Amino acid sequence: MSATSQLLHHNQSYAADFDYASVGAPPRLKLAIVTCMDARIDPARAFGLEPGDAHVIRNAGGVVTDDVIRSLTISQHYLRTEEILVVQHTQCGLLTFTDEAFARELELETGARPPWQALAFTDLEKSVRDGVNRIRTDPFIARTGSVSGFVYEVETGRVRPV
Amino acid sequence: MSATSQLLHHNQSYAADFDYASVGAPPRLKLAIVTCMDARIDPARAFGLEPGDAHVIRNAGGVVTDDVIRSLTISQHYLRTEEILVVQHTQCGLLTFTDEAFARELELETGARPPWQALAFTDLEKSVRDGVNRIRTDPFIARTGSVSGFVYEVETGRVRPV
Repeated sequence: MSATSQLLHHNQSYAADFDYASVGAPPRLKLAIVTCMDARIDPARAFGLEPGDAHVIRNAGGVVTDDVIRSLTISQHYLRTEEILVVQHTQCGLLTFTDEAFARELELETGARPPWQALAFTDLEKSVRDGVNRIRTDPFIARTGSVSGFVYEVETGRVRPV
Repeated sequence: MSATSQLLHHNQSYAADFDYASVGAPPRLKLAIVTCMDARIDPARAFGLEPGDAHVIRNAGGVVTDDVIRSLTISQHYLRTEEILVVQHTQCGLLTFTDEAFARELELETGARPPWQALAFTDLEKSVRDGVNRIRTDPFIARTGSVSGFVYEVETGRVRPV
């Protein structure tokens, strides 16, 4: 069985016991989280979130990109969130290579360099601070009173403030 | 107590019982999911994912953007994932406005139009198909043998293939 089939199979039992039909779209906690796609992070378990509680935005690294700014702006403008957490993590893959090395490897494989950067970083805490600052100074993010940055430790499950 | 404090408070109990210190970075199921940031979707519960199982990429809409392509390329290139699911959902906020209306509202509020598009859509199934096609034809996504598209029904918890 492919992994995709395995997920769809599980989804049948989830739907059979589904209990969230009346949950609304605006996040109950008025909060959005930006974090990494990393498989070791389960934001719902790590932060105790129930369906309906928070927007969760994830990409490689938990880096604050244009697409994250787009998502956060929509989150605040239409769905009334007010608080933002940026959560990057220890042992992140983006700490292990450089944009240039990545582009070169892709060029060797495909014959072309990607039109985007990998957005690797060398200093985890600095990357979190940069993300928080980008959000705080973005002209389209209206509510910047509670934007905070954290490192999630994949070794302990603990988040620590940056 | 702010919502942020509430999450951090919960994280202390999560860390106290943390059981995943030995989980590795490469997703066990060799799979990546692209879905919406919507608060009603909990991919881990809906698909039965344990920490370590899958990459989860989320933005407003679950739209396949450059940032999603960046994330998927890193997922496959460095972390050896092979299958991809694109999961958008019923009652998505991006079905309720247009890019132009959004840009105009932001201009009224801030005096400027955003340098990015909101990426609203009118046809949910078509948006899923477009995302799947964009991934299948992207030159930097090496493994396109299992890329599938789904609609998650927030009314039932069920995913249906597109």
